[in-house]
Amino acid sequence: MDKVGRYQFMAEPFHCDFSGRLFMGHLGNHMLNAADFHSTDRGFGMKRLMTINRSWVLSRLAIEMVDMPAQYTKFNVETWVESAMRYFTSRNFAVVGTDGHAYGYGRSIWAMIDTETRQPTDIYSIDNGAINDWIVTDKECPIDKGGRVKMSDDAQLVHTIDTYYNDVDINGHINSVKYIEHVLDLWPLDWYREHAVKRFEIAYVAEAHAGDQLSFYRQEMPQTSEYCIRIVRADGTECCRSKVQFF
Amino acid sequence: MDKVGRYQFMAEPFHCDFSGRLFMGHLGNHMLNAADFHSTDRGFGMKRLMTINRSWVLSRLAIEMVDMPAQYTKFNVETWVESAMRYFTSRNFAVVGTDGHAYGYGRSIWAMIDTETRQPTDIYSIDNGAINDWIVTDKECPIDKGGRVKMSDDAQLVHTIDTYYNDVDINGHINSVKYIEHVLDLWPLDWYREHAVKRFEIAYVAEAHAGDQLSFYRQEMPQTSEYCIRIVRADGTECCRSKVQFF
Repeated sequence: MDKVGRYQFMAEPFHCDFSGRLFMGHLGNHMLNAADFHSTDRGFGMKRLMTINRSWVLSRLAIEMVDMPAQYTKFNVETWVESAMRYFTSRNFAVVGTDGHAYGYGRSIWAMIDTETRQPTDIYSIDNGAINDWIVTDKECPIDKGGRVKMSDDAQLVHTIDTYYNDVDINGHINSVKYIEHVLDLWPLDWYREHAVKRFEIAYVAEAHAGDQLSFYRQEMPQTSEYCIRIVRADGTECCRSKVQFF
Repeated sequence: MDKVGRYQFMAEPFHCDFSGRLFMGHLGNHMLNAADFHSTDRGFGMKRLMTINRSWVLSRLAIEMVDMPAQYTKFNVETWVESAMRYFTSRNFAVVGTDGHAYGYGRSIWAMIDTETRQPTDIYSIDNGAINDWIVTDKECPIDKGGRVKMSDDAQLVHTIDTYYNDVDINGHINSVKYIEHVLDLWPLDWYREHAVKRFEIAYVAEAHAGDQLSFYRQEMPQTSEYCIRIVRADGTECCRSKVQFF
């Protein structure tokens, strides 16, 4: 089996914004699906891990696009493991048109946890480090790796939301994809008439649950025209940190 | 070509609720996709209509389920035109497991509008009433047709939301699928630990736009254990009326 997985998706009408382009949240969802299909097909997917009380946990996701697929466009999400360490693995994505051109790329970092203790566990313990058989070192992912999003105390509280039934995933946590939507909802529609998301980055720090109130603190980085966002639960715990750059 | 269209979908992990079953909003989205694929394959889809300044507009959707597909389950959405009149067409859905059992059914009513005047237009005017070639009269859709949701002045204001970028569809209107999510978010997560949606019905009455504040009025119908919901814009215009029945 090829080390790189390739999965076709379509920019569905109700997954596109008013400009007729795929929403970033739905693209993120397609990437997470591709990751899941790829790992399942190669013996280290969620369904297999569930049987041994292990689970992948998404730690970081960065997506950088030249363009977003337009309504009804079919495109492929390619995904592969770039590296694996004991406690983290790095998985990349390419969003590729049926003509072969790249719409953009993604990078993600995953931990593996013990679903009973919720503690990180050794990725190499699965099938004697079998994940190392799937590492691809010669495929390009020409976007910045990202890293810890640095924010000062100048970040302003810009929005507070309650969370509901549709925000919650199968684990009872706020859905990783919904966070993407909530962050991008911080800008008004008029902003998106002039701007599109160039790069979206999010680090999942702590879990939140249905009913949690989430506060969004935002800071503009004037040198780079990036915005940094901190999402904080009502008890003060930081859940996510995100960075958004617009065209 | 078969008069009935059949399209396969999967209950994706991030489209499932905390019980591991597909969210009603995502099922609704799959039905609307199936409708779009079916009509496109048969020459009267959105893309074709756009070229002649026509568009389908969803007027009503009713979904009644025995069970919801579980995470990772593949299922088919079958769809067919039950009847067509000058200004409305009725399209049905069956959600069918790969083993052939029915998870549930859907019914929908669509109008065709002139995209310049936004007025209803004659469906029969398209290719000399070609839609009549696709009517299926012998396939069962054993759920109630529904109809106008009757509410009294006793309905209580239970929630008010602002609408944002991710709520807006390609036409600049609040996304039909997002309304389903917003209605079902009126109940707390604890409610869903004891109840699942048996039947969901929504009538799209008037459009709302990003930034519109939407107020949700709810009334319990004691004889039937149904809830009726009216969604109203800040200017008092009613946008949607919905009815939800739980197991």
